[in-house]
Amino acid sequence: MNVAVDAMGGDHAPDWVVQGAVDAAAELGVRVILVGDQKRVAPVLNGRHAGGRVSIHHCEEVVGMDESPLKALRKKRDASIRAAFHLVKSGRADAVVSAGNSGATLAAGVMILGRMQGVERPAIAGILPAERGPVVLIDVGANVDCRPSHLFQFGVMANAFAASCLGISNPTVGLLSIGEEAGKGNEQVRLAHEFFSKSDLNFVGNVEGRDILSGRARILVCDGFVGNVILKLTEGMASVMAQLIERELMGSFLGRAALLLGRNAMHNFIRRLDYEEYGGAPLLGINGVGMICHGGSPPKAIKNAIHMAVQYVNNRVLEKMTFQLTASGPSQKLDSPALSH
Amino acid sequence: MNVAVDAMGGDHAPDWVVQGAVDAAAELGVRVILVGDQKRVAPVLNGRHAGGRVSIHHCEEVVGMDESPLKALRKKRDASIRAAFHLVKSGRADAVVSAGNSGATLAAGVMILGRMQGVERPAIAGILPAERGPVVLIDVGANVDCRPSHLFQFGVMANAFAASCLGISNPTVGLLSIGEEAGKGNEQVRLAHEFFSKSDLNFVGNVEGRDILSGRARILVCDGFVGNVILKLTEGMASVMAQLIERELMGSFLGRAALLLGRNAMHNFIRRLDYEEYGGAPLLGINGVGMICHGGSPPKAIKNAIHMAVQYVNNRVLEKMTFQLTASGPSQKLDSPALSH
Repeated sequence: MNVAVDAMGGDHAPDWVVQGAVDAAAELGVRVILVGDQKRVAPVLNGRHAGGRVSIHHCEEVVGMDESPLKALRKKRDASIRAAFHLVKSGRADAVVSAGNSGATLAAGVMILGRMQGVERPAIAGILPAERGPVVLIDVGANVDCRPSHLFQFGVMANAFAASCLGISNPTVGLLSIGEEAGKGNEQVRLAHEFFSKSDLNFVGNVEGRDILSGRARILVCDGFVGNVILKLTEGMASVMAQLIERELMGSFLGRAALLLGRNAMHNFIRRLDYEEYGGAPLLGINGVGMICHGGSPPKAIKNAIHMAVQYVNNRVLEKMTFQLTASGPSQKLDSPALSH
Repeated sequence: MNVAVDAMGGDHAPDWVVQGAVDAAAELGVRVILVGDQKRVAPVLNGRHAGGRVSIHHCEEVVGMDESPLKALRKKRDASIRAAFHLVKSGRADAVVSAGNSGATLAAGVMILGRMQGVERPAIAGILPAERGPVVLIDVGANVDCRPSHLFQFGVMANAFAASCLGISNPTVGLLSIGEEAGKGNEQVRLAHEFFSKSDLNFVGNVEGRDILSGRARILVCDGFVGNVILKLTEGMASVMAQLIERELMGSFLGRAALLLGRNAMHNFIRRLDYEEYGGAPLLGINGVGMICHGGSPPKAIKNAIHMAVQYVNNRVLEKMTFQLTASGPSQKLDSPALSH
């Protein structure tokens, strides 16, 4: 197994990315190809090849975090994110992991590997740590406007991913809306509800905001605008909450004592609700495996994203997804619903 | 000042509603008209008229929490929420407060009092307790699909409300989106950005999910689908967070000691982040004052919503809103922007 890691992508690249990659190679036994500028990556790597499992694939350019994805990809033919996906295309790598410009990762993945059959729009699946285990939120930013069929395909793809990579058997699927009854929501949601109702997915109907973190549905389907807002809101939430609780505790003597005793547990809590645990958001619907990491990802998040990429490949998620998508292909979606497994 | 309270609306009506109304009359000196079935309201009121400030306006019917708003309003001509708004229409009351079917409250308010001049779509403003004080989120459910001009008018209305009722002078206004740059978001957001940029509002640009609770903008504008999901997500969040922290603390001896000492502060924290503090979500853009409360509102939330209605009337929010809307009327929006105050 070879994972191509965009060594130049991220707010702390190449340092933190290289560190995470080295840790993954050492701890998971996976081979990692660091894709980036040899002159900048080699000094950071500093000979730590984890028994020959870490190598460098040189390329000259990088797409900056704030660059327009499409323009940058057109101009920079030797950008690290392009090179990484080309390694997958040519069979030299099995997956891509990047903490760089997420729009560029999405665009390069779709452009170089292509869309899976039966998928109109690839999507990004965010993983939220929630009350009863992780919840998959799809889409979290690839598509700001979605047709009902797109939303349905998101659900089918996330279903295969959650079952295979998160170990959730026959995951509950919910459609994010503003009322639990079938008729509630905007037009896309109302129509998507019909698609889901007629499928063999474990569909629990509409799910409201209050139930996002309760785990009523382990997969939550929404357009990329709503999903992105929710993902970013919940990402910062744990630390905001902890700050507010801390402030409240500081206001009394007993509270200050409690804070002293409970500080470790509090920090564990923040860490647990942090995006680092799952490391990356899988890009679903392309002919290959791509993990999009937060720009500020520390080494641990990079390592965990590589771990998830390995599981994605090992568990043959792409094959399972293709099977389910074909069974529920666009032309016959309402007649032959997605097969559950 | 007379506030018409829908005594029949809410999960715990009339009991909790009547209690909250009596408390408001006693503590705030406001006159409250309990609108509802005399046979059910009088026994709960049990003679507590707070020095003659609490009275009953009898009506026979009520719109159920799960009824279709428009159908129910058409059929039930003597529904309490209709009667309440008619009291405002005829000048016998200055404001309406209801914890009943929120769709019916919205529809009755618009139908009976009409839209303000310059407002294409009335909207509901949710109030989120956040890091640096309350944040106004508009719209939280009245309009699932919005045109750019609607979003702009939401901002103008919330501006007048936040300045007058929450004491936030020259509030910062942000447009909820999925990237901070002006070009990011869906089409409505991109076009609305132009409206706001050319106005005299204290516009801070696009605001991402991570900054919803940080207070970067004190007013956040979005469509009612996104706003409703966020409002409901954050409503339940404090208690979910507290549960998770509690579980984390229970896992160690020091943690259990901390929990024992800090339990009070923790409960204060949950209470502070609860919807009860502001009690109601104002319905902006109708020719009158209406407060929509959570169906499960306890007496304190009802009392606080009545308090906010009083401030709304006393601070002449409607006049200020009319002035700002006229100055930025739809026909000339891009040329004559909203006046700041």
